[in-house]
Amino acid sequence: MNSMELFEQIRLKKSFLCVGLDTDLNRIPEFLLSREDPIFEFNKAIIDATSDFAVAYKPNLAFYELHGAAGWNSLQKTIKYIRTNHPNIFTIADAKRGDIANTSRMYARTFFNHLDFDAITLSPYMGHDTVEPFLTFEGKWVIVLALTSNGSFDDFQMVKNAESEKYLYEEVLGKAIHWGDENNMMFVVGATRAEKLESVRKIVPDHFLLIPGVGEQGGSLADVAKYGMNKKCGLLVNSARGILYGDQSMHFADAAKAKAKTIQSEMETLLKNAGLI
Amino acid sequence: MNSMELFEQIRLKKSFLCVGLDTDLNRIPEFLLSREDPIFEFNKAIIDATSDFAVAYKPNLAFYELHGAAGWNSLQKTIKYIRTNHPNIFTIADAKRGDIANTSRMYARTFFNHLDFDAITLSPYMGHDTVEPFLTFEGKWVIVLALTSNGSFDDFQMVKNAESEKYLYEEVLGKAIHWGDENNMMFVVGATRAEKLESVRKIVPDHFLLIPGVGEQGGSLADVAKYGMNKKCGLLVNSARGILYGDQSMHFADAAKAKAKTIQSEMETLLKNAGLI
Repeated sequence: MNSMELFEQIRLKKSFLCVGLDTDLNRIPEFLLSREDPIFEFNKAIIDATSDFAVAYKPNLAFYELHGAAGWNSLQKTIKYIRTNHPNIFTIADAKRGDIANTSRMYARTFFNHLDFDAITLSPYMGHDTVEPFLTFEGKWVIVLALTSNGSFDDFQMVKNAESEKYLYEEVLGKAIHWGDENNMMFVVGATRAEKLESVRKIVPDHFLLIPGVGEQGGSLADVAKYGMNKKCGLLVNSARGILYGDQSMHFADAAKAKAKTIQSEMETLLKNAGLI
Repeated sequence: MNSMELFEQIRLKKSFLCVGLDTDLNRIPEFLLSREDPIFEFNKAIIDATSDFAVAYKPNLAFYELHGAAGWNSLQKTIKYIRTNHPNIFTIADAKRGDIANTSRMYARTFFNHLDFDAITLSPYMGHDTVEPFLTFEGKWVIVLALTSNGSFDDFQMVKNAESEKYLYEEVLGKAIHWGDENNMMFVVGATRAEKLESVRKIVPDHFLLIPGVGEQGGSLADVAKYGMNKKCGLLVNSARGILYGDQSMHFADAAKAKAKTIQSEMETLLKNAGLI
């Protein structure tokens, strides 16, 4: 999927919602726990219920690795299910990998070939060597951490470069755009830093941004759109807990659907206001 | 295991060698491929052959994840084998994880509780939130990336902070030492940057350092010891390809043993010269 095709999906669904599949056995409805693969059962129901309102799904690898080989199987089944039943959905492995060339190539084969994700999140600390091996996979994407939504983002991301006078996250954006292009590279920018989206857009006007932190972490969707939206929308806004865990009954998927629809409605208004639909 | 106990193992074995279990099905002896679990069979033989000369083993997660659930099982069996048969060996998950609090806690449970590793490598890009959840596990360690051995290390690690005039890797060292102590935190410093070990030691005189890049990547063991050794040795030097793949016959483990012994001999001399044994 390239950026125009992703934008087409956004226009079609009037939504730039990414559902975070942070599937936690302690938080899913208890009646699912007796099933053979509760994580997959939960994901399948959530995906079927929300896929009219979401353009992307993002499993967080930590939630799957916690269950070892079984968790890995649940993840593989989830992606295969999306591929088979919802082929136009964009899939993101929130893995935040970051290693050197030979090892990065192996991660790329794992996430792009074997698991068949469209995209993977990467940490830029080791530089170009981490990112480059992923970019040789046709139609696949890297999503590089730039300005994250967590409290301690400023420990290092706000270090100001003495030479360029840019912050480290601006250095990451400014260097990384030369490694790929807007059809194979996105950046993570937290919604809790919406006021910084203006400066981000000066460096990466055309790229898609993956935005966590709306809702429970306190970020505002309207602010994200105001400062971050570009001519192809250019935003994937992630919501996980806010959608997944609203109801513990047999009707949990309906509750998730209602939550996703509410967010989609707000996104539809923002897309209309921007003249994109 | 605390730092004194690790130093005791180093004195006992006269070695600060860490064997990197970067087990690649394309490079292990072909006759192993017909076994039920070739990765585990290879690791087991390598561990038994080299454990007199090594104080630590470091599986690189990428090599296991490539094989999905099966790879995860091979990894789990490998760590269990070390725990059972070589209980004083220090084990490192080279996973380079880096996420925020809730997710980091999940990774910590995965690698410290379920897989029972002693230590995990972490990327510091997201700051304190990434590291802190791992430090609550008694007797376990984090190993934070500081100055890596790869070619593009200087894309971001050498960004000079306008305020402190320190490089980013020095900022990482300087901040992270306040998060943990020398009994639960180490740092990755590449052997290819041995000349920088003096400046590293000014910031973290007492911590252990995990040093990749000796051998095939061009780093010198003598230089690493000269600039990096402290009163408790303070070094774990990793070697993977240089030990693992010297022989493709039935005698591959003997070849690995000879390689490990050669490195151990050099380390013994360096430890003697430093008056540590």
